[in-house]
Amino acid sequence: METRRVGRQTVKLGHPPRVVSYANIGGKMEGEGPLAQEFDELDDDPFFGKKTWEQGEAALQSRTLRRALVKAKLHPEDLDVVLSGDLLNQCIGSSFGLREFGIPFYGVYAACSTMGEGLSLAAMLVDGGYANMAAAATSSHFCTAERQYRQPVPYGSQRTPTAQWTVTGAGCCILGTAGTGPAVTYVVRGRMVDMGITDAANMGAAMAPAACDTLSALFRETRTRPADYDLIVTGDLGQLGHDVVVDLMGRDGYELDERYTDCGLLIYDRKAQDMHAGGSGAGCSASVLCGYLLRGMAAGRWQRLVFAPTGALLSPTSTFQGESIPSICHAVVFENRSGI
Amino acid sequence: METRRVGRQTVKLGHPPRVVSYANIGGKMEGEGPLAQEFDELDDDPFFGKKTWEQGEAALQSRTLRRALVKAKLHPEDLDVVLSGDLLNQCIGSSFGLREFGIPFYGVYAACSTMGEGLSLAAMLVDGGYANMAAAATSSHFCTAERQYRQPVPYGSQRTPTAQWTVTGAGCCILGTAGTGPAVTYVVRGRMVDMGITDAANMGAAMAPAACDTLSALFRETRTRPADYDLIVTGDLGQLGHDVVVDLMGRDGYELDERYTDCGLLIYDRKAQDMHAGGSGAGCSASVLCGYLLRGMAAGRWQRLVFAPTGALLSPTSTFQGESIPSICHAVVFENRSGI
Repeated sequence: METRRVGRQTVKLGHPPRVVSYANIGGKMEGEGPLAQEFDELDDDPFFGKKTWEQGEAALQSRTLRRALVKAKLHPEDLDVVLSGDLLNQCIGSSFGLREFGIPFYGVYAACSTMGEGLSLAAMLVDGGYANMAAAATSSHFCTAERQYRQPVPYGSQRTPTAQWTVTGAGCCILGTAGTGPAVTYVVRGRMVDMGITDAANMGAAMAPAACDTLSALFRETRTRPADYDLIVTGDLGQLGHDVVVDLMGRDGYELDERYTDCGLLIYDRKAQDMHAGGSGAGCSASVLCGYLLRGMAAGRWQRLVFAPTGALLSPTSTFQGESIPSICHAVVFENRSGI
Repeated sequence: METRRVGRQTVKLGHPPRVVSYANIGGKMEGEGPLAQEFDELDDDPFFGKKTWEQGEAALQSRTLRRALVKAKLHPEDLDVVLSGDLLNQCIGSSFGLREFGIPFYGVYAACSTMGEGLSLAAMLVDGGYANMAAAATSSHFCTAERQYRQPVPYGSQRTPTAQWTVTGAGCCILGTAGTGPAVTYVVRGRMVDMGITDAANMGAAMAPAACDTLSALFRETRTRPADYDLIVTGDLGQLGHDVVVDLMGRDGYELDERYTDCGLLIYDRKAQDMHAGGSGAGCSASVLCGYLLRGMAAGRWQRLVFAPTGALLSPTSTFQGESIPSICHAVVFENRSGI
């Protein structure tokens, strides 16, 4: 058996899986932001046609998977497995959203890094011959997140300047053994990093060290430098977390220039939309990847891209009990290659 | 690339990973049950030395992983990845329990089938050369589960006859590329099955059809029969769910005899301990596997064993909103083989 381990965290895929299809759907605020044109569908209705926000988030995830299938003329039976999770307690956005498809299902939970974990596992399962086609999906929803993690939405409570805005959106990416789409060439599995930050309204600062840990592992284990990639994108660090990453990586000798950005900075016009530090939520990185980023690769704008979403593995209970915030970052490298 | 797919749900491992180590820890009730001797450690303290039950569950999971490492003279650095999740919102038993180790971490969520999913993914990652050694772990805790899913524990609310008792326990199983322990030879990925049951106090009935779907897939895709296995064990269906499985499988032409049992029936003396339908929780199947079952295989009691824990993918929110209960079952086949 040939090893695929480049190091403890980095895996090099021997038969790089191809992106076969992808889709994203966003809500009202996403439709008013600078990436509005990069969504397959925008829906102003926070209920997505259902009776509750939670059922709406499930519908959002369901519609996004269906859309990704339709775009590639695929059927649910073509998928060997779908990996998904979300921010709702017990990940009900995913389980209730995807139960109707009858596709073998692995639930994953990495908070806002869920798309990174799902894609990593999907890529290894396809690469190793365990699946012909595998999908990774996730979602988030402003209203379900607010009422579960923060305050009832109708309170209209004041937000701190470091706060971010949970994206109402979903993304789904289907990987397969062949095709002409971007290839997943490397996977970097994250470790939990906890620098002792306890402010749940400053997630960017809490999660930034996890992004640095994973990006450093990628560069170190593959002997590459930031300049070897056309774009490095974290998930939802926002302005504060972005700046912490640039600072910390610089101290480690890795200069990040304008080729480094963050999905939480891309998805909204922070000033015009009053978004404070930027966008957040598992659906932030997922919907930006499955639209703006993968479309940009298809258009040749970038050839080699690092997608590195971060997640904060806390809960309201852990915060009430005075705990700090363990964070994690799962990354994948996409590369344009000539088709097989 | 050689395919490992035997069918859409079943994967045959080309280089079957070996069980390198395993450990389990239980609480007070588990220590009063018939499997007391099959635990590495029993602790009467529901706080496991911490200040809250949730912190206690995290400590329980941490101690179990540490114990599994020590038993095989391994260090955290020897593990390339650990896959874990639990029933707590945002899986904080796992994230707070395992953050101190610095091991690359994939969060998984399959409710009480989490050990099945974690082991499945760990087995494929080791089989495919993506990890030299990978651990799967999970936990549950009576008090954290009661207060999150049901009633505050001090209420002492009356339980229905179909109710089960959440196991306070954890299990951890480490797989590696070589060794003399049992081999994981097949993995069967579950699909969500929802037969419309809405009674969250009758999980056994809700989850039984998922067990049948996965077991049927294993038999059909590998052309085997129940009699080809020495033991078939579901996770925590309890008495009711067990009987439903026997009935449904019988109608499909698969006769399950005394070689079929359920971890929820094994772990407690239902009558003497007043456990109603039996044990439940992610820690139920995990602690029974990582003690009684794997020890029994080492002792030669069983040569070929199907471990098929089931999970109910609901949340209190979905129940409040009138939803039924999507369930899932992830299975792995263990076989004794001569060492490599």
